[in-house]
Amino acid sequence: MREWDLLEHIRLAAATQPAQFPHVVVPPGDDCAVVTLGLAPALLKVDQVVEGRHVPAVASWAHGPFPGGHSRAAYLDLVARKALARVLSDIAAMAGTPAAALAAASLPHDFPDPAARELADALHTSGARFRCPIVGGDVASFSPAHPGPLTLSVAAIGSPHPARGPVLRSGARLGDALFVTGALGGSLAPDGLGRHMTFDPRLPEAAFLADTLGDRLHAMLDISDGLGIDAARLARASSVRVEIDARLVPCAPGMPVARALGDGEDYELLFAVDPHATVPPRCPATGCAFTRLGVVVAGDPGAWLRRDDGSTRDISGEGWEHRS
Amino acid sequence: MREWDLLEHIRLAAATQPAQFPHVVVPPGDDCAVVTLGLAPALLKVDQVVEGRHVPAVASWAHGPFPGGHSRAAYLDLVARKALARVLSDIAAMAGTPAAALAAASLPHDFPDPAARELADALHTSGARFRCPIVGGDVASFSPAHPGPLTLSVAAIGSPHPARGPVLRSGARLGDALFVTGALGGSLAPDGLGRHMTFDPRLPEAAFLADTLGDRLHAMLDISDGLGIDAARLARASSVRVEIDARLVPCAPGMPVARALGDGEDYELLFAVDPHATVPPRCPATGCAFTRLGVVVAGDPGAWLRRDDGSTRDISGEGWEHRS
Repeated sequence: MREWDLLEHIRLAAATQPAQFPHVVVPPGDDCAVVTLGLAPALLKVDQVVEGRHVPAVASWAHGPFPGGHSRAAYLDLVARKALARVLSDIAAMAGTPAAALAAASLPHDFPDPAARELADALHTSGARFRCPIVGGDVASFSPAHPGPLTLSVAAIGSPHPARGPVLRSGARLGDALFVTGALGGSLAPDGLGRHMTFDPRLPEAAFLADTLGDRLHAMLDISDGLGIDAARLARASSVRVEIDARLVPCAPGMPVARALGDGEDYELLFAVDPHATVPPRCPATGCAFTRLGVVVAGDPGAWLRRDDGSTRDISGEGWEHRS
Repeated sequence: MREWDLLEHIRLAAATQPAQFPHVVVPPGDDCAVVTLGLAPALLKVDQVVEGRHVPAVASWAHGPFPGGHSRAAYLDLVARKALARVLSDIAAMAGTPAAALAAASLPHDFPDPAARELADALHTSGARFRCPIVGGDVASFSPAHPGPLTLSVAAIGSPHPARGPVLRSGARLGDALFVTGALGGSLAPDGLGRHMTFDPRLPEAAFLADTLGDRLHAMLDISDGLGIDAARLARASSVRVEIDARLVPCAPGMPVARALGDGEDYELLFAVDPHATVPPRCPATGCAFTRLGVVVAGDPGAWLRRDDGSTRDISGEGWEHRS
């Protein structure tokens, strides 16, 4: 969990920034930072995928084989797609619209030149798919003396919702209803591929919610580490407790609730809304389900699960421990 | 030179973006991209430093020794500084002002936890130094099965000069005077350290030039690969030839002209100005020299050197070939 400790260290170090830099409206710690540029607020976020860590490793980039029996180009499409989709999921979690992205790739020293072009093309393909142009990039090769695996970082900039503004994690209130998009669990298939490589960031769903709910959409984040851990993040940021009903958790086909709570890499949105607001069962634009699965209550901040027998347990630590 | 081929491939692939995405005002290919966000234009740029490639490698991050006899924390200060300064040099090359930066680090699997905190602190120290807050970050560790060296990518966003707008590479005109900031050559010391690790991005100098010259500041870029290569880039982007007088090239102490032409990693600004404009010998705010070293002429685009005997030769390919 060293990465989390480190991210917390970064967050605390950056907590003094708003005083020094008044244009930093939301410092690190939420899904995106918010910076005012001229008079326009901008959402900023960076994320990365590392071969062997976030995407399956390849035995030889020159000769394959490639995960899932894909061609090299098809596998690079999946890698580039995940790299961009991860960061756009954070833009979605603020109810923002992506404007542009930048990519930096560090290539294994034996990465073939045609593969590098395939990677660049794959980034543009995903940029077009998600309506987020790739406007800059850098490429470096690891030196043979200091080799490394494929590493791809993507930084994205976006605009917050023009009426609602950025939807932070910290806005949940007592009595709010807690919803989630889609279904949870099992995003990592046994072969290392699966939904974590092919998900669509919930950008249209977030825009629909901000359009229709406005200020009654109180708080939102995306589920990257697991429903337990991420629900607890929303709870702590809002100084509330969230209570999730085990019977209401939407599980991916064949997945038990435990997997839905802890698998992570779902990239679904968890959001708290005013209890008097109406959320339709599905997003009209995409058909994605909106499922009410819990409520915001008083108590020490954290996420709790209410089981069928009425007992509750703390799930604030449940998530994918191998994430980095 | 595979990275250049690849960057060219990316640039061409992105050339269609302005039609698809009208808010992309300047696509990849200049120092920064320019994107309109709301009504505000934003400069966007990403760059990276890779251990063993852009900064000297460390034998053991746990035990050292560290380059130049530095402590680990002091060496990480230099690494973070270079990572941020490189990308801010591109913001300077557009005459922009940085607003914020994002950092993504991939850590060797044996990178000690205290070192990770030192790296985060170092980024914030450099952010404060250059008035560019670090508003987001991501940290991943290479897996032991797929190890890699320290890799740090930094993406920056900035505002163009409010009156002059972004200063592109493509604005040089016949008859323009060609200037350079500072002195060139020898930025890479024999021990792998040197000025390429400690330079200040020429942000105040660029702001002064845009403030005082306005539209008479025609074109600008920063010298990262070498005066020859980078002067040729400005020339090709502007469809002109630049002719540099060998006697006028400002060389760093002890450096011959050949080193000033070809060493690269100078991070000085090369700029073309209207021949009737007055450029002072130094920037009043910083004392940095402005040296007139050439002229923009007609001819096949490229960079040529005029020697003492009046002969000329093409220097369009002279630069640091090991850069990536």
